[in-house]
Amino acid sequence: MLWFTGLSGSGKSTIATRVHEELEKRGVNVEYIDGDALREVFPSTGFTRSEREEHLRRTGYMASRLAAHGVTVVASFVSPYRESREFIRRLCGEFVEIYVATPLEECERRDVKGLYARARRGEIKNFTGIDDPYEAPENPELTLDTRALSVDQCVDRVLERHGARH
Amino acid sequence: MLWFTGLSGSGKSTIATRVHEELEKRGVNVEYIDGDALREVFPSTGFTRSEREEHLRRTGYMASRLAAHGVTVVASFVSPYRESREFIRRLCGEFVEIYVATPLEECERRDVKGLYARARRGEIKNFTGIDDPYEAPENPELTLDTRALSVDQCVDRVLERHGARH
Repeated sequence: MLWFTGLSGSGKSTIATRVHEELEKRGVNVEYIDGDALREVFPSTGFTRSEREEHLRRTGYMASRLAAHGVTVVASFVSPYRESREFIRRLCGEFVEIYVATPLEECERRDVKGLYARARRGEIKNFTGIDDPYEAPENPELTLDTRALSVDQCVDRVLERHGARH
Repeated sequence: MLWFTGLSGSGKSTIATRVHEELEKRGVNVEYIDGDALREVFPSTGFTRSEREEHLRRTGYMASRLAAHGVTVVASFVSPYRESREFIRRLCGEFVEIYVATPLEECERRDVKGLYARARRGEIKNFTGIDDPYEAPENPELTLDTRALSVDQCVDRVLERHGARH
């Protein structure tokens, strides 16, 4: 289980989708799950703490069952709460927590989807980093600083950690 | 995907766990998921229509992703709403709906867990068959009548349908 966590706009999905592609190319039985995509399947999922937690727990459970059947899961979720991530870690045999540590200022400067501007204007509530906390990992297996590393370099770091590099 | 649906106490989990065991013995990559067991993992799951629907949609999604990776999923859920079951059918490549058609009177007579008595006393709300509807499948791939068939016979029928019989 390669679990990417980080703020909205940190670059985690960009890196994670590339990792997924690279693993597929190498013939790994791999599944990519993404917080935004799952919210499209389950549009009623809200953004309060309890709704986020439930969403993550269910997602984590699904991922752990996939992992139990030999599937490598690449997951990209803001997953802002430490406790939710620890719940998923406990479910999984091998949990690699990858912290995409792009600082808030940089995510907000990029603001690819315009969400930070909307959150600052109060149009979006419970937005992680603005009016909802992001609890950074304390001992992640890997930390990626997207200011210092290119996407390719980040992908390489993850693949090295996964041991899938030939 | 072998999806067992039926009233509480209809015998679906008894048959489904036996099917799971038999498939495992035959070396099939199989996962068993059970409504009651999942509710223990996610205790906040309620019994209103919208909560049941969400629970089933999420479960169905998980099952479909397992199936996409070559896992045979044996699922035992009351799954009382036709629409929820159809949602799961659409997600899955191969969906075998198995209707454990034990009538309400017989389930209530058996009342293995004493739940019907409690529901009749009003101690449990939204209990399927009592004060919440069960929408029976219209065209299930298989219907099992547990009054006419033994558990062994039911298991055989399912395995025949799955094509795993040697």
